[in-house]
Amino acid sequence: MGSALTVPLVDRGHEVRLWGTKYDVKILDVIAKGGLHPRIGVKIPDLVKIYYPEDLKKALKDIDVVILGVSSAGVASVSEQIKDIIDRKTPIVIVAKGLEEVGGEILTMTQIVERIIEGGDRIIYISGPSIAKELAHRYATMVVYNSKNLKLVENIKKEFETTYYKISINDDVIGAELCASLKNIYAIAIGWFDGFAKKRNGLEMNNAKSAFFAQAIKEMAYIVEQMGGKRETVYGLSGIGDLLVTTRGGRNGMFGMFIGMGFPVDKALKEMEERGVGVVEGYVTAEMMYKFINGKVDKSRLPLFYSAYEVLFKGLQVLDAVEKVLNTLSKLSTF
Amino acid sequence: MGSALTVPLVDRGHEVRLWGTKYDVKILDVIAKGGLHPRIGVKIPDLVKIYYPEDLKKALKDIDVVILGVSSAGVASVSEQIKDIIDRKTPIVIVAKGLEEVGGEILTMTQIVERIIEGGDRIIYISGPSIAKELAHRYATMVVYNSKNLKLVENIKKEFETTYYKISINDDVIGAELCASLKNIYAIAIGWFDGFAKKRNGLEMNNAKSAFFAQAIKEMAYIVEQMGGKRETVYGLSGIGDLLVTTRGGRNGMFGMFIGMGFPVDKALKEMEERGVGVVEGYVTAEMMYKFINGKVDKSRLPLFYSAYEVLFKGLQVLDAVEKVLNTLSKLSTF
Repeated sequence: MGSALTVPLVDRGHEVRLWGTKYDVKILDVIAKGGLHPRIGVKIPDLVKIYYPEDLKKALKDIDVVILGVSSAGVASVSEQIKDIIDRKTPIVIVAKGLEEVGGEILTMTQIVERIIEGGDRIIYISGPSIAKELAHRYATMVVYNSKNLKLVENIKKEFETTYYKISINDDVIGAELCASLKNIYAIAIGWFDGFAKKRNGLEMNNAKSAFFAQAIKEMAYIVEQMGGKRETVYGLSGIGDLLVTTRGGRNGMFGMFIGMGFPVDKALKEMEERGVGVVEGYVTAEMMYKFINGKVDKSRLPLFYSAYEVLFKGLQVLDAVEKVLNTLSKLSTF
Repeated sequence: MGSALTVPLVDRGHEVRLWGTKYDVKILDVIAKGGLHPRIGVKIPDLVKIYYPEDLKKALKDIDVVILGVSSAGVASVSEQIKDIIDRKTPIVIVAKGLEEVGGEILTMTQIVERIIEGGDRIIYISGPSIAKELAHRYATMVVYNSKNLKLVENIKKEFETTYYKISINDDVIGAELCASLKNIYAIAIGWFDGFAKKRNGLEMNNAKSAFFAQAIKEMAYIVEQMGGKRETVYGLSGIGDLLVTTRGGRNGMFGMFIGMGFPVDKALKEMEERGVGVVEGYVTAEMMYKFINGKVDKSRLPLFYSAYEVLFKGLQVLDAVEKVLNTLSKLSTF
């Protein structure tokens, strides 16, 4: 996504520098030679300057904005590396998603950055339905820039928007971050039905998928509210929009499909590995989310979340999980 | 959907009678001979008794509940036919969707029935994501039964639910009815992006589709609230759930796709006709919805609805419509 963002930024006439960690060197080589970016399938604009891991200081010299697009696991270490280089007021736009355990505590991406680099009011968190490949192809994309500092984010919006990249602003950072993590977990459960359908080689189960999708949004709204965010955040691009794009293809849904087909969790993870599709974010996040919200939510209001959790980590059979969700909701009368 | 509902009802041990209008005679013949129902692909349970158009009185003798599953255009005439036959307290469950012009006035399905048959507190309106074929195959389906009479609907729920058919109850009848009509209109606009993608033979536009989906829910919530319903209805099975199932295949999305491919509206309608896929509900409903909400909403809050309307009836080019929606939202700052 960091690479994809260079496209609208160059289109807006900004000077863009693309720095990579040691894990990105191969990709940087391809970009430097003018080849297609292997993940997003486009040529990165020629005007983008490439910086290798050792050139971090050069890359950050006199910059106006930092965009942090490393993986969630890299956010703490890169924050440590840049904290003494960048100006104390330089805005930091965070693209990384998920939760990470830092010193025994589960933290969101902005919480990690805030703890390492001072100045929470310069942090902006991007959320919403945004497949990097589509953005890089200049396909219409609408996202949310979330910040406690609405004035800052208004200014960034003015500098970053293009005809195809539109930015909504919101001050509910925690709500947006929770949506970005939760959607991966719920996408797994929605994917189960594709597995059932595939196994019996029959009709798609659109009724059930759509019902679980609606239930996911209901549960996300409840979790976000309990954790100090706003329900409205879930009912917009960050929640509904991003959950939808995530369920339309993607690793979490595919992993859910394998589980729906009857694969035990470890076998489903292995299938994913063999296909080389990388980490299943929802699987990793589910365990951390479980701890993150523990004691702060009424579990009876989250039948889908806890059933999905039990399938992933407690050996609950997926058909039993679906039955459990249906029966729990049915007893609620209104769901 | 009327035929599909016989499956859970027979499974619950109820005596079910299936009556058809003159338009249904061919289907009744197939069912009577034990063949597969041509629309939903299953054999209707043997225990269901078939009644031909002329046998309406016999079909309604000593019944406990009427389920009204005719097309929206037939609701008024069938209501007239049954009003003096059924008991004054017999509950009426309405499956029909949409708006109809009756005596120069635009009315919802329950409004039509209420005007013809007295006793609004015995009316139940079904909403939510429910493809008839999937329900008839006993695939998990979760719906909403809406009624001003919550006690009645609680009782019906107890009698109708099965392991695979779950019923949520809600007292927001107008909200549910508006969702059922609006979703068809928004599904057309979401389908545009499939047309763009098809035309250039390129990537799917999932970012844009998901953003428009989120915007559709936002606009539906606003319309429902302005018309006296509840936003929460839109954020559940009736709104999010049903819009999702509608965008996943279906006539409205296909019609939207043809428009996205560049077909003028009349040509797109002709394409649909040639494929024999029947009426495009969203097209028919859009014009009535326009009148229904006119003067009761702030148009600036509904850029997607009015852009879709202008594409369908005012000759607005679809690419200009998308640009208009993006730019209008962008100016709002928060969307």
